Amino acid sequence: MRNIKLTIRYDGTSYSGWQFQKNSSRTIQAVIERAIKKITGEKSHLTGSGRTDAGVHAMAQVANFRTRSSIPLKNIHMALNSLLPEDIVIYRVEEAKAGFDAQRDAKSKIYRYTIMNADFMDPFLRLYAAKIFYTMDIGRMRQAAKWLIGRHDFRAFQATDGAEKNSVRTVRKIDIKKEGDLIYINIEADGFLYNMARNIVGTLVEVGRGKFSVESVKDILRARDRRRCGPTMPAKGLCLIKVKY
Amino acid sequence: MRNIKLTIRYDGTSYSGWQFQKNSSRTIQAVIERAIKKITGEKSHLTGSGRTDAGVHAMAQVANFRTRSSIPLKNIHMALNSLLPEDIVIYRVEEAKAGFDAQRDAKSKIYRYTIMNADFMDPFLRLYAAKIFYTMDIGRMRQAAKWLIGRHDFRAFQATDGAEKNSVRTVRKIDIKKEGDLIYINIEADGFLYNMARNIVGTLVEVGRGKFSVESVKDILRARDRRRCGPTMPAKGLCLIKVKY
Repeated sequence: MRNIKLTIRYDGTSYSGWQFQKNSSRTIQAVIERAIKKITGEKSHLTGSGRTDAGVHAMAQVANFRTRSSIPLKNIHMALNSLLPEDIVIYRVEEAKAGFDAQRDAKSKIYRYTIMNADFMDPFLRLYAAKIFYTMDIGRMRQAAKWLIGRHDFRAFQATDGAEKNSVRTVRKIDIKKEGDLIYINIEADGFLYNMARNIVGTLVEVGRGKFSVESVKDILRARDRRRCGPTMPAKGLCLIKVKY
Repeated sequence: MRNIKLTIRYDGTSYSGWQFQKNSSRTIQAVIERAIKKITGEKSHLTGSGRTDAGVHAMAQVANFRTRSSIPLKNIHMALNSLLPEDIVIYRVEEAKAGFDAQRDAKSKIYRYTIMNADFMDPFLRLYAAKIFYTMDIGRMRQAAKWLIGRHDFRAFQATDGAEKNSVRTVRKIDIKKEGDLIYINIEADGFLYNMARNIVGTLVEVGRGKFSVESVKDILRARDRRRCGPTMPAKGLCLIKVKY
């Protein structure tokens, strides 16, 4: 059995996320699995590094599938991109070691959240950024973010319907930068709970606009109470940038 | 009568162009005129600096309309953006001199064409760039572009159904630059014939990939024969960047 590793870029706007959700077959995973079946003739399971929610994008999602097919990598690559819709593009196709598992072997992931900090949204970014018109203090956001770095129980930042028993994760890095009217928040962690990235950003936004104090982030983390953290930011501003192995 | 000048950014993907075309009321102009009428209560004609075709975008289209309304500029601005769909955003609203006419007074326009020069399209640029997978020689394209600078009869670069009697225009500048896999072609002219920008780019692409000689551009221009120039590039790669007054 060959083990094939894919690096995938997608615009998540028209999908109900990476993985099966509710009654939708319009997921990134399902669309790629159907293309693989057309090429190899086999039904393969595609394992992604992790789920992305409905409307969330990816610059470089990583996934793998097993196949008995002997079709050369280059042909699989060309065939996949010709079968896939324009909003999903396979950037790399590689032969992986037999034991490689895109989900289990992921050491960390980097998500980027994009905020348009202006009175009006740029029409070209309307599907890729969330608008915040409040004046934002980036310095305060950076200070608050420091409380989140390290190994913590992130229960307060998990969706209320999140089902993870173990909500301890390690956040390695949070970088916040401003370029013109855009604010980029990069979060690297060994794993993300459901809605964790969007809830962290929502909380940092409350700090940035002065509604929460810088120290409140420490208290929210300790209290492990979802109701105290900021609002869940819209999915469209979130993008999976990199998966590290 | 006040004369109001608007600077407008739009994603042209879902529109049949700036101006009324065939049987569609889904034009940028019509959508903005309807919003103006809701705000001022008057039916105003919106004069754009020029038409953009179906699917063509604008970073800064300029237009003006006259009104008897005394609503302050800031309120017109906010009201327009709250009424307009997300893919049309008004960036500036100004009081113009009584005689200002966005079309007649335009001294020159700059259009930018974006080419993704790679095997695969970036899904985030699929609506804003055209893909060319041939290897492109930018140096040859720059040399060929020089033949087009100046005052010429651009009949060869006009759409076959173009109805302009006077096809003489002045091209002030053509800048071609490559950034990663992207090629940007900026064309500044005192006016553009129907499809002229897209036909110039189509011709430069033929030169860049070696199908046309550098000198052929001079011959095409002189022959004034549309059938000899390159293909019309897709609308989605074209964007009106600036109107100079």
